[in-house]
Amino acid sequence: MNQITRLFGIRYPVIQAGMIWCSGWRLAAAVSNAGGLGLIGSGSMSPDLLQEQVRKCKMATDKPFGVNVPLMYERNDEKFRILEEEGVRIVFTSAGNPATWTKYLHEIGFTVVHVVANTKFAIKCQDAGVDAIVAEGFEAGGHNGKEETTTMVLIPQIREAVNLPLIAAGGISSGKAMLAAFALGAEGVQVGSRFVATPESSAHPAFKQMILEASDGDTMLALKQIGSVRLLKNKFYREVLDVEGRGGSAEELVELLGKGRAKKGMLDGDTEEGELEIGQVSGLIRELKPAGEIVEEIMKEFMDTQKELTKNYFNTWKPQC
Amino acid sequence: MNQITRLFGIRYPVIQAGMIWCSGWRLAAAVSNAGGLGLIGSGSMSPDLLQEQVRKCKMATDKPFGVNVPLMYERNDEKFRILEEEGVRIVFTSAGNPATWTKYLHEIGFTVVHVVANTKFAIKCQDAGVDAIVAEGFEAGGHNGKEETTTMVLIPQIREAVNLPLIAAGGISSGKAMLAAFALGAEGVQVGSRFVATPESSAHPAFKQMILEASDGDTMLALKQIGSVRLLKNKFYREVLDVEGRGGSAEELVELLGKGRAKKGMLDGDTEEGELEIGQVSGLIRELKPAGEIVEEIMKEFMDTQKELTKNYFNTWKPQC
Repeated sequence: MNQITRLFGIRYPVIQAGMIWCSGWRLAAAVSNAGGLGLIGSGSMSPDLLQEQVRKCKMATDKPFGVNVPLMYERNDEKFRILEEEGVRIVFTSAGNPATWTKYLHEIGFTVVHVVANTKFAIKCQDAGVDAIVAEGFEAGGHNGKEETTTMVLIPQIREAVNLPLIAAGGISSGKAMLAAFALGAEGVQVGSRFVATPESSAHPAFKQMILEASDGDTMLALKQIGSVRLLKNKFYREVLDVEGRGGSAEELVELLGKGRAKKGMLDGDTEEGELEIGQVSGLIRELKPAGEIVEEIMKEFMDTQKELTKNYFNTWKPQC
Repeated sequence: MNQITRLFGIRYPVIQAGMIWCSGWRLAAAVSNAGGLGLIGSGSMSPDLLQEQVRKCKMATDKPFGVNVPLMYERNDEKFRILEEEGVRIVFTSAGNPATWTKYLHEIGFTVVHVVANTKFAIKCQDAGVDAIVAEGFEAGGHNGKEETTTMVLIPQIREAVNLPLIAAGGISSGKAMLAAFALGAEGVQVGSRFVATPESSAHPAFKQMILEASDGDTMLALKQIGSVRLLKNKFYREVLDVEGRGGSAEELVELLGKGRAKKGMLDGDTEEGELEIGQVSGLIRELKPAGEIVEEIMKEFMDTQKELTKNYFNTWKPQC
């Protein structure tokens, strides 16, 4: 038990990231049933679809689950009303100002977590009264901060800056990485990429296959002029690189991106023309595995690694000061 | 004691990175005297100056110390001959192929460590027979890998790929970060930026002051076309950004960089026109502190954080599998 498990009423402080096109009710329910916190990623959903997904998730688990709402999309008020009606009580907001919605969300009884990538927004979260923060490093997939601060540096910086319960994200797919995040000051982890490579995720099988094959350097932060996003390298990525390499404008990039690139890649499985959002940690993912097993494996490795470190180093070095 | 302390005959597995213009004999001796491993950074030194530095270091400490030799510079053979004559027995090579020098260095009795930023070169190190690897993540200062893999992802990737003793670098300035690196599979840490902000480093006071003032997002990876390097944002950095933003060529960047930019910034203290190489972790550095105190603080925090994690989490979660 710690602040994060108590806040959500869950067994393990392992949160499955809400991700567009990848995390519907099947994935969220599987993670929640295993003792973590599953999140439905509503960024790619209309309010109606979100309602359907929430209802299915409620049928599939009696454990707490949440919904991620990226604030840059429209119809947030409709989404929040639906969540209130359906009795969802945990919302992760991202890609926006925590001051905009937190007060309202608290009034209707929600636990509010906001995702940040820098210290400045962590302080804004504290001022806005959010209940916990997800701090997401440069290595994370999808949309990303312009400071490019990595998880290793971001977590202690934010731990120093604010007192809120802190969930680390970016580069975390294992119990070892979870323990590393806890050493840096986090009390929970948000795991995205690892949960895309599960039977329960709604990602297209061709995209899942590319994740299993990815290694060192196969993802890169791109589209920095119009909003940094970490992508798997494919034909679309190389086209972006060409435009950026010759000093192309933001307008050109917006046009190249067009509409529906992410859906094309991640849901429809066009792995050349689509936008494939995934984290660096894809280089460590070798096989598809049920989401519940992943939760258990992470926790087992967390405990085993802690025991190993204790065995090897407990009282080994007595500092002289 | 672990593989790293045994390999070098040192008390603590804390290695001070060899850094151009910042790490001469004073810094190396201070770190070695405190029980870590100090490295003289020979990248910015002629063979004659290196010899003088080594001799001074031998007068200042009877503990083991080493020398970092970036292989992209000239006169490496002269440098190695001097180190042999002077009885230095630990060499960290970087920025080159480990196959080129390792066999020769072993023949003349050196312990050889090579610095890498990706799995491919880690495997080359194993094939070349080096004695240990430094794996350096994207958040590190100075020259950096083109894969942009962060420490959080790089360390477990390399731990899986090779069996060599592994030293983590990039984003590490504290005992918490050291423990995180150990959780990820390292047995030692190489710390750079934190040791620049010491009285013993030869960095210019104006550069040291900028490190103390740096925060989130104040460093950025630049000059990717001609060799990625992490820089503090200043006038020179903004000029680089301008050239890159309009799709300027590698030749233009080489011309803009010119000769002696790093010396101008880091040694001579021209903080606007100079090249200021430092890591992201500068955002966590708030005060100048003697190098020996830093070593002790890192080790104390490593042990304290381990105890705290044990207290909070030992046997807290019993996985169900």
